[in-house]
Amino acid sequence: MLAVSPFNQLALSGVGPIKDVMIFDTTLRDGEQAPGIALSPEDKIRIAIALDDLGVDILEAGFAASGETEREIISEIARSNLNSKVCSLARAVRSDIDAVIDTGIDMVHTFIATSDLHMKYKLKMTPDEVKAKAVEVVEYAKAHGLEVQFSCEDATRSDLDFMKDILKSVQEAGADSVNIPDTVGVITPRAMGYLISELKSVLRVPISVHCHNDMGLAVANSIAAIDSGATICHVCMNGIGERCGNASLEEVAVNLFANYGIQTVDMSKIANTSKLVERITGFGLAGNKPIVGKNAFAHESGIHVHGVMSNSLTYEPFKPEMVGADRAIVIGKHSGAHSVQGRLDALGVDFPAENMQELLATVKKIAVGDKMIDDAELLAIVDNIVWRNTTKTTAVSLDELTVLTGKNTTSTAVVTVTIDKNDKRTAADVGVGPVDAAINAIRKAINDKITMEEYKLNAITGKSDSICEVTVMVKNVRNDGALAVGKAVGLDIVETSVDAMMAAINRDYARRRDA
Amino acid sequence: MLAVSPFNQLALSGVGPIKDVMIFDTTLRDGEQAPGIALSPEDKIRIAIALDDLGVDILEAGFAASGETEREIISEIARSNLNSKVCSLARAVRSDIDAVIDTGIDMVHTFIATSDLHMKYKLKMTPDEVKAKAVEVVEYAKAHGLEVQFSCEDATRSDLDFMKDILKSVQEAGADSVNIPDTVGVITPRAMGYLISELKSVLRVPISVHCHNDMGLAVANSIAAIDSGATICHVCMNGIGERCGNASLEEVAVNLFANYGIQTVDMSKIANTSKLVERITGFGLAGNKPIVGKNAFAHESGIHVHGVMSNSLTYEPFKPEMVGADRAIVIGKHSGAHSVQGRLDALGVDFPAENMQELLATVKKIAVGDKMIDDAELLAIVDNIVWRNTTKTTAVSLDELTVLTGKNTTSTAVVTVTIDKNDKRTAADVGVGPVDAAINAIRKAINDKITMEEYKLNAITGKSDSICEVTVMVKNVRNDGALAVGKAVGLDIVETSVDAMMAAINRDYARRRDA
Repeated sequence: MLAVSPFNQLALSGVGPIKDVMIFDTTLRDGEQAPGIALSPEDKIRIAIALDDLGVDILEAGFAASGETEREIISEIARSNLNSKVCSLARAVRSDIDAVIDTGIDMVHTFIATSDLHMKYKLKMTPDEVKAKAVEVVEYAKAHGLEVQFSCEDATRSDLDFMKDILKSVQEAGADSVNIPDTVGVITPRAMGYLISELKSVLRVPISVHCHNDMGLAVANSIAAIDSGATICHVCMNGIGERCGNASLEEVAVNLFANYGIQTVDMSKIANTSKLVERITGFGLAGNKPIVGKNAFAHESGIHVHGVMSNSLTYEPFKPEMVGADRAIVIGKHSGAHSVQGRLDALGVDFPAENMQELLATVKKIAVGDKMIDDAELLAIVDNIVWRNTTKTTAVSLDELTVLTGKNTTSTAVVTVTIDKNDKRTAADVGVGPVDAAINAIRKAINDKITMEEYKLNAITGKSDSICEVTVMVKNVRNDGALAVGKAVGLDIVETSVDAMMAAINRDYARRRDA
Repeated sequence: MLAVSPFNQLALSGVGPIKDVMIFDTTLRDGEQAPGIALSPEDKIRIAIALDDLGVDILEAGFAASGETEREIISEIARSNLNSKVCSLARAVRSDIDAVIDTGIDMVHTFIATSDLHMKYKLKMTPDEVKAKAVEVVEYAKAHGLEVQFSCEDATRSDLDFMKDILKSVQEAGADSVNIPDTVGVITPRAMGYLISELKSVLRVPISVHCHNDMGLAVANSIAAIDSGATICHVCMNGIGERCGNASLEEVAVNLFANYGIQTVDMSKIANTSKLVERITGFGLAGNKPIVGKNAFAHESGIHVHGVMSNSLTYEPFKPEMVGADRAIVIGKHSGAHSVQGRLDALGVDFPAENMQELLATVKKIAVGDKMIDDAELLAIVDNIVWRNTTKTTAVSLDELTVLTGKNTTSTAVVTVTIDKNDKRTAADVGVGPVDAAINAIRKAINDKITMEEYKLNAITGKSDSICEVTVMVKNVRNDGALAVGKAVGLDIVETSVDAMMAAINRDYARRRDA
């Protein structure tokens, strides 16, 4: 299933045994603070349930002091019967702790900055004042029965002796664990190892770590902290969070599992949880995002494809199934009939040989510039060709579509569709734009209980005649609310959107007929 | 300018002095192998010139054996009078070395796999055969006057004694440097440090390192190799490359500069070079990409904005100017008149107070769900309001736009524009889709030498009535080829694209008037 470097274990000789690590997830708190992310209460609850199902140990559900709505969400998450412990952030002030108490949860993560920079410019407090405040607040929270994790904000730019002093004091005050945040992402793994070892030598409570990715080292710093004695790790799904984000949950979990043999979350649920968080937050992943990016297990034709075909571990650190992902052998503009047929065979598609030239021509037409054709796109192209050539599989065909739009013009569309070859229907509708109008008109013509659940248009960079790729997901309430996905690629945004919609509708019809 | 962790230097005590590091850039070779990237000869030459200007030491320009076109590009890059040394990849076979010789360049990077996994499943060769091949090819390349870097492919899963043996042999055969690739991204920083120290103890030639990011450790592994004695580092701009990519040039360079005090490339050119590579490759960066992502120096209102306003280093590892980037204070749906006015002041915009309510209402309307309003968007909204309210600044106004599109219908647009308040013009044109048609019609009506250089539509995920964001860049050949950018956000793809186009055209006109 995986083949990592034998040097990983060898280099750990001399390092004490690394045991259980707890995953402290802050997707809903630090993750939500990322510029551009704003989650609704329903969004947060859906993500909390998914993260609990994935198996995180602690869920930082929000920042209770930020308002009544936030407190209600935190309480609601705590009432959802999760296995994860639910926690709230709080500044080191009594009113913030009171806000946490109001939610009825059992754990607080409270913080105050300990670096000279933050104490001077942000807090405008002396180190003695900061220490007194920290101790007071920890005592207050403990007196109210809360489990307490205490953080030195900007720890990695703080004075070591001052941190030892304040952390020993909060430990005496009853803190259950302490957290070392690399708030601005400014430490190296070697230095993080040094810092954690130093702190561990004076503390008996568990040490947690919270790393930001400003210089690309969040994951490396997290695992360096763990192999130097930290036992709790703050992470966010997909590495979201302030600025360049937090240590990514999936990268930390896979590193611990693959390189240290430590099981944390349910690995096989990683890919789906990542997709859910991407969809709900709207925060897109780069193609080369480790573990969960669409290229993580993608190979183009050539030496790598050849190697992967004979033994996938030659060019993959582990099999994609380990994290619930799929491998993609990418078809590009240089692919011939052999590669394409190979992909179709692997996908179990029985494609008519007489249409192969048309398929290859379409692939070449679409794979211009920097486009690649993944399995989903190949299937969409195949579907289009098969449906065009064998009308029997097309339940709903689009005979006519006209859209009128413009400035100060209500976008209007008129469509004619034929259902089951003889039921011809025409309908017109309006929308906020031409795509919306066209899709509304189709839905009206179909006269079925179809709702659009998701519309995704991939980013276009190029000229106004660039290729676009549209994916739509429809739900049919008459069909037990089953979801059907359609995908299309083309040059015209309206036509491509409509093609994707028609593909989804036909998949929905086909499924009903099979049932 | 920067404030990193004091522990970074402290943790290096005991480590020998780290001196110059050479940047070996493989954006044009490993980067181009990324699924979905296919560069034209012109693209590769533009990127090579930009990387040379950035200051990389070695440019791996391609893989000479892959074809005549590739060899021509490599030769062309070598003839471009760059300061960087130009190099080509070659497998450890004579014909690949011959292909490099044909290009006329001076350096080759040749490789053969040394792990049991690769030797058995891919090469189907014994270790002795691999070693003999490596020595033979290095001798052959040296006999033809080439500078040679030799790589053990999949080094991090190879046997240490075998690697020491083969590397000592190629050193004897004349190799000028050796490279240790973590081909599949399977090593930890601690283990990389161990491996490099071991190899350094038996070699006298410089050691290079080439790290992949499959588990998110490429940058950390690169700097671990460097602080254990490697002096050449393979990188790709924006971290592109096979699967999850290679160590990112910008992250490695910033880490070396900020945490080790080692100057490599011209830091101030990083942001622009990154944008150029993103635009040419079409490989989009995540918002949270370290150093060059759009959120790297973005802060939403709240504690962080307050901290950044008093001293930016409280929540930034270094000032964005260091890498030629800009800070973004993001306005979201919770922003009030005070925050918005603060941003406008900072941007030097004199916004009419009587329109503030309209501006706030527009911000709230647009900042739904997960949208954030960055400076460019805020300016676009301000421009729209100001232009609508004070026509004097609008040189070209759009009076009328109608677009007809559909299935089996040639998209057609008719526009009426007024230039300088009295020159009314109507024009119609067609296009591959409604956006293309509308933009062609506007260009025709303007009757100016305006070409569209770039059209960028941000990804949309939601429903078909979701907000979209369009950026266009136009060039006017009558205006010394100056570029003007326009940006718009809205619900209708066609209308928003046209708004962005009109904004760009008006900026172009305004600039000419100022000149």
